[in-house]
Amino acid sequence: MEPLRVVVCPDSFKGSLSASEVASAVAEGVLDVAPDAVVARLPMADGGEGTLDALLAVWGGEPETVATVDAIGRPAQARWVVSPDGRTAVVELAEASGLPRVADVPLQPLHASTRGTGDVARAALDAGVSEILLCLGGSASTDGGAGILTGLGARLLDAEGRDVPDGGEGLAAVASLDLAGLHPRAREVRWRLAVDVTNPLVGELGAAQVFGPQKGARDGVADFLDDALRHWAHVLEAETGRAVAELPGAGAAGGVPAGLVAVLDAETTPGAELVAEAVGLPAALADADLVITGEGSFDSQSVNGKVADGVARLAAASPRRPPVVVVAGQVLLPEAQARAAGIAAAFSIAPGPIELDDLVSRTGTRLRDLAAAVTSLTAASRG
Amino acid sequence: MEPLRVVVCPDSFKGSLSASEVASAVAEGVLDVAPDAVVARLPMADGGEGTLDALLAVWGGEPETVATVDAIGRPAQARWVVSPDGRTAVVELAEASGLPRVADVPLQPLHASTRGTGDVARAALDAGVSEILLCLGGSASTDGGAGILTGLGARLLDAEGRDVPDGGEGLAAVASLDLAGLHPRAREVRWRLAVDVTNPLVGELGAAQVFGPQKGARDGVADFLDDALRHWAHVLEAETGRAVAELPGAGAAGGVPAGLVAVLDAETTPGAELVAEAVGLPAALADADLVITGEGSFDSQSVNGKVADGVARLAAASPRRPPVVVVAGQVLLPEAQARAAGIAAAFSIAPGPIELDDLVSRTGTRLRDLAAAVTSLTAASRG
Repeated sequence: MEPLRVVVCPDSFKGSLSASEVASAVAEGVLDVAPDAVVARLPMADGGEGTLDALLAVWGGEPETVATVDAIGRPAQARWVVSPDGRTAVVELAEASGLPRVADVPLQPLHASTRGTGDVARAALDAGVSEILLCLGGSASTDGGAGILTGLGARLLDAEGRDVPDGGEGLAAVASLDLAGLHPRAREVRWRLAVDVTNPLVGELGAAQVFGPQKGARDGVADFLDDALRHWAHVLEAETGRAVAELPGAGAAGGVPAGLVAVLDAETTPGAELVAEAVGLPAALADADLVITGEGSFDSQSVNGKVADGVARLAAASPRRPPVVVVAGQVLLPEAQARAAGIAAAFSIAPGPIELDDLVSRTGTRLRDLAAAVTSLTAASRG
Repeated sequence: MEPLRVVVCPDSFKGSLSASEVASAVAEGVLDVAPDAVVARLPMADGGEGTLDALLAVWGGEPETVATVDAIGRPAQARWVVSPDGRTAVVELAEASGLPRVADVPLQPLHASTRGTGDVARAALDAGVSEILLCLGGSASTDGGAGILTGLGARLLDAEGRDVPDGGEGLAAVASLDLAGLHPRAREVRWRLAVDVTNPLVGELGAAQVFGPQKGARDGVADFLDDALRHWAHVLEAETGRAVAELPGAGAAGGVPAGLVAVLDAETTPGAELVAEAVGLPAALADADLVITGEGSFDSQSVNGKVADGVARLAAASPRRPPVVVVAGQVLLPEAQARAAGIAAAFSIAPGPIELDDLVSRTGTRLRDLAAAVTSLTAASRG
C-alpha cells in the first residue's frame, strides 16, 4: 500500500506550545504508528500574534530586524520576514506596536500609535518586496492606521496645517492628508491585511467600543475614540473617495484597515487563509490522506476564520478532500457543528478528568499519543 | 459504497452508565454521522457484576427469579437468565451472595456464604439447562465454594459426621464430603466460571489475603481463612483427586472455583471472552468495518482479561480484522501499549480540563459526540 500522506498544520496552543512545537509532537505521533508515512509539517497561525514565528518555522532562515519605536514612542526592535522567493514581506503589527510591549507602563489609549509598524513596512518597501502581508492583532492603539501611514511618510494635518499628534487623540483634529512624502513604493505594492474579526470601524461593534477597553479606553475615552475614528473615516473618504466606516473587519487592530484600505488600497483577508497560502498548504493538501490541525480551544470561533476553519476550507476545495481532524486542549464545539464546518473529527488531549495546569504540562506527550491514535485509526480504516 | 458496519460492544462505565446505556449512546453517535450504517449493539461485561444485565439486554426477555438467602442467610430474591436457545443458564454470584446485599449490617467474613447461589444454580438445573455460566465477582464470602455445593445438596461433615456451619469458618472443621444428596444433574451439566483474576486459592496472593480485607477479614481473620481454605483444598483433593490450591483463578470470589472445579469439574474462563461468546460477538465481528468498545477506565488492567482485551482478541482473530476503538472515561494506557494489545485507538470522553463529577454527568452526550467523531473519521478514511 502507498505510504500514508499526512499534513500536520496546527495553530499554537496558547499558553502551552507554539504551532511549531505542536506540529512536531503530532508528527512524532504519526510516525510512531506509521514510520513510513510522508508527513508535511506546516505550523499555522491565524494572522495574529505568532504568525511571523509560524512562517519562519516553515520558511527557515532568519528574520530581518528594524530599529523603531513601540506603541508609545520608546525605542524598540521589530522583526519582519521575507518569503524565500523575496516577493512577500510578512510584518506583524504586534512586533513593534503590540500591547505586550508596553505592559510595563500604564495604558495610554489616546496616545498609543502604530507608527513603529510603519517603520517596519518602510524597511520592507526599501527591500523591494512586491507584497506586504500585514498581520493584525495584539495592538495597543486605536489610531485607525494613521501611525502606519505617517511612518511611511504621509502627514496628517489639522485645520491650521500642523501635524497632529500620534495616536487616536490626534485623529480628532485631522483636517487633511498630505501624501506627497509617502514612500514611493507604498502604493505600488499589494497590501494584504490578515484580520480575524469582522467588526466595523465605528459604532457599538467598532474598534473603540469593543476592543478599546482592553487597551485602557473605558467609558468616555472609548466614546471619544469612537468619535475620532468616525471623523477619520470622513477625512479618508473626502481625500480618497473610499468609505471605510462600515467595512467589515475595518475595526481590527484599532482600525488599521481603515487607513490602509483608503490610502493604500489594502485588501482584508481572513488571516488563517492568508497564512495557509503563504506556507503552501494548498499544494501540500493535494495528495494528502489525512490532515491534522489543532489549537488550544476548539470552539465556535474556531470555525469562524481561525486556523481550523481555514484548513477545512482548503481541504474541502482540494481534489482528494482529505479528512481534517482537530486535536485540541479542549473541544467545546458539538461534533455536528464541527462536521458542518468540514471537520471530520475533533479530539481533546485530555486523558480523563484533569485540571488545566496538569493538562498544559502534558500537552506534548498527549498530543503525540492522540496523533498516534488518530493515525492508527485512519491507517486501519484504509486497509 | 457499502454501508458502514459497526459493532458496538462496550463494558459499563462503572458509577455512570450501564453497558447497555453506553452502547445506546455510542450507537446514536454512529448513526448521527452514518444514518445508513448497520450497527450491532452488543453490551458486554467482564463476567463480574452486571454481566446478567448485559446478557439480558442482548437476549431480551425477562429473568427468572428464585427465593433464596443472601450471604448471611437472610431471605433474598435472586435473578438468573436462560439463553434464547434454552441451553445456557447465566447465574451471577453477586445476585444472591453479593457484598452490596449485606452492606446494611457489619461484615461477617467468617460466616458469609455462597449458599444462596447454590439455590439459584439448583433452579437452573431443575429447568433443564445443559450449561451453567457462573459469573463470579462481588462476593461477600470466603467459603471456597462450599456454600454453592451445599445449596446443591452436598454435605460437608466434620470428624464426628455433623454438618459444619456455613461460611469460611466451617471449612476449618470439614473432614469429609457427602455427595449422595447432590442434585442429580449437578455433575452432568457443563460449568463455566467467568473469572477476571488469576489469583490462586491460598497464600499471599490468595483469596483470603488479597480479597479478604474488603469483605471484613483483616489480620488474624484473614490468616484464619487462608488456613481454612488450605485445609479445604486438602479435603477436596482427598475426596476428588483434584489439586486446586495453586490453580490460577481459584482465588476468585472467595475461592468458589476451588470447590466447583474439584467437585463439579467446572472450567474457569476469562469472563470477557465468555460473555463475548454468549452474546454472539464473534459472528458480529465477521463483517464489521469498525468495532467500538469502551469502559470507565482504560488502563493496564483493560488489556489483561477485561472487556477491551477480549474484544481485541476476537477482532484480531476474525477474518476482516476490523479496527477496535476504545472510548473511555479516562485513558491511562499509553497508546503504544494499546496498539500492542490490538487496539487501534483509545479516546477519552473528556472534552478538556474537567472535574470527575462534571464528566460523569455528561458521559452520555460525550460518548455520542465521541462515537460520531470516530465514525466520521473512519468513514472519511475509507472513502
